[in-house]
Amino acid sequence: MRQSTQQTENENRQLVLSERPQGEPTEQTLRLESKAVPTPAAGQMRLRTVFLSLDPYMRGRMSDAPSYAPPVELGEVMVGGTVARVHSSKLNNFKVGDWVLCANGWQDYALSDGQGVTKLANDLEHPSWALGILGMPGFTAWAGLLKIGQPQAGETVVVAAATGPVGSTVGQIAKIKGCRVVGIAGGGEKCTHAVKHLGFDACINHRSDDFETELAAKLPDGIDVYFENVGGRVFDAVLPHLNANARIPVCGMVSQYNATKLPDGPDRMGWLMGQLLRKRITMRGFIIFDDFAPLYPEFAKEMGEWLKAERIHYREEVIHGLEEAPAAFIGLLRGENFGKRVIQVGAL
Amino acid sequence: MRQSTQQTENENRQLVLSERPQGEPTEQTLRLESKAVPTPAAGQMRLRTVFLSLDPYMRGRMSDAPSYAPPVELGEVMVGGTVARVHSSKLNNFKVGDWVLCANGWQDYALSDGQGVTKLANDLEHPSWALGILGMPGFTAWAGLLKIGQPQAGETVVVAAATGPVGSTVGQIAKIKGCRVVGIAGGGEKCTHAVKHLGFDACINHRSDDFETELAAKLPDGIDVYFENVGGRVFDAVLPHLNANARIPVCGMVSQYNATKLPDGPDRMGWLMGQLLRKRITMRGFIIFDDFAPLYPEFAKEMGEWLKAERIHYREEVIHGLEEAPAAFIGLLRGENFGKRVIQVGAL
Repeated sequence: MRQSTQQTENENRQLVLSERPQGEPTEQTLRLESKAVPTPAAGQMRLRTVFLSLDPYMRGRMSDAPSYAPPVELGEVMVGGTVARVHSSKLNNFKVGDWVLCANGWQDYALSDGQGVTKLANDLEHPSWALGILGMPGFTAWAGLLKIGQPQAGETVVVAAATGPVGSTVGQIAKIKGCRVVGIAGGGEKCTHAVKHLGFDACINHRSDDFETELAAKLPDGIDVYFENVGGRVFDAVLPHLNANARIPVCGMVSQYNATKLPDGPDRMGWLMGQLLRKRITMRGFIIFDDFAPLYPEFAKEMGEWLKAERIHYREEVIHGLEEAPAAFIGLLRGENFGKRVIQVGAL
Repeated sequence: MRQSTQQTENENRQLVLSERPQGEPTEQTLRLESKAVPTPAAGQMRLRTVFLSLDPYMRGRMSDAPSYAPPVELGEVMVGGTVARVHSSKLNNFKVGDWVLCANGWQDYALSDGQGVTKLANDLEHPSWALGILGMPGFTAWAGLLKIGQPQAGETVVVAAATGPVGSTVGQIAKIKGCRVVGIAGGGEKCTHAVKHLGFDACINHRSDDFETELAAKLPDGIDVYFENVGGRVFDAVLPHLNANARIPVCGMVSQYNATKLPDGPDRMGWLMGQLLRKRITMRGFIIFDDFAPLYPEFAKEMGEWLKAERIHYREEVIHGLEEAPAAFIGLLRGENFGKRVIQVGAL
């Protein structure tokens, strides 16, 4: 059966995990299937996906290596955060047409009993922002920077993926807190955006041949907070510039998600620990809702105010069509996105 | 000139850095010299060294690699913490015979203007303990465990060098706090001591062929706090057992201090950071007086009470004679000490 390229009321298109990727995901990793639109039983509602979030963590769910969350099983719908509308409801507190934040995954329709579903206002100007600046990535930036990084005015904060949804937010919050902010991004256009539109003090292109030298030139006072979301070559360049008492919140290692084996030696693991000791550095990994869920209301209030006052700018890439999601996700892991990447799965 | 093997009033024996060691220090690293006993000027006093502390950090001062403290220069007296008595004084607040905690280094006599010198009570039963359980190693254990490790009753705490001055104190404090404590030590006799006399729940000999298996068997609930003071093979064995949200205070990496190059690959540096992320682990390096100096009075009070109540046991190895210090220090880095190693340089 040929799948529609549009969301309809007649079928539930699903992207299911077809095989576990070795290295970078491919066109074979996910498979588009067509199922019947599910019918809610008593105590359930049907949700229609409008926006699907694409996030680097999803690469981890495709693997069955031990991780903080169970993997998606082969043949199962790929997981993902979504903004949806209630399409049919047998629940008193959810009405047809209501906007919600939920986790339908990569499909048109899902049933829900309301657990874990958050109602959104029905007059939001940007409902998809609940997947970005006002959702998981924004909260990750806010809590990781402020609660782990604890930046002080005058300190230097460095963040990579500087125009991504997390990095761009980290840098802008650090500016609000009076820090010097140096971004790292993949490409000159992104770097220009970070400085011109996001207010970073500098931004270095990690694809430049002189990346390490250019970065060093922008760090006359070293680094007090390095917000780690990429790892790899960027971390190697950052490490020599870390100051005594530096803080490193670790929220991602996107440069390594597709790695199939460890890099060649020498083994720098013990050396890294020696650096942490000598420089009295704190490095802390965190998973946002596991570690900071109780702080979500504080985040939402503060971020809402900053957005209203236009102190934080947010850039989103909306790609239309569920069938585009696999390629868009592969590109995301390559750093091809410029801002927060979401898939618009259906009409508003 | 042949040096005396005893402290006298006629010469100031000094151990000076003769060459920077490559790898393990040797008999050539330090050189015994004889100088005149120095005479205090106005505003100075002469201190006579009674006890010299031997500590792993001293290996770092022998190297000129970048570190948190400047290296000892070639030909200079090796640095070190000491307990001394005032031998001659032109200071009003220090009288001949007073006991003090100071940093004379590896020599019989030193001049001081009183800066950085702490008076000790003159009737102490164990003046040398100011170099151990009541001094830097005890404070390191207390602050690192309680302020960074933050152990909760019922959690599992693992510490290596379990009979050393830091490790033995970490384990005993963790027991006071209601934790399960598993020690790691080099040798069966040390392990027996840790369980029988220090009250550890278990202690594993890292020189055993089955070290990893034996350790795993004692960790049915994983590890919540790993107090890192050795690194290397011990850390490799510990890492798979770390629980979500584990805390790792890093106060030393003694297994690596003599290393002349990084271990062969693969490079596990990024992999370690991935582990910290997935398990939401905090790893923090610290240098005790740089990070926690204001807490010293709180430590001294609490530790004094525990010692008085015999809730903490302390084992000291006193080696007689300044000339024995180099060999004793080489042995310390090999883990040959059993308890806190101090050199008695002169008569009480």
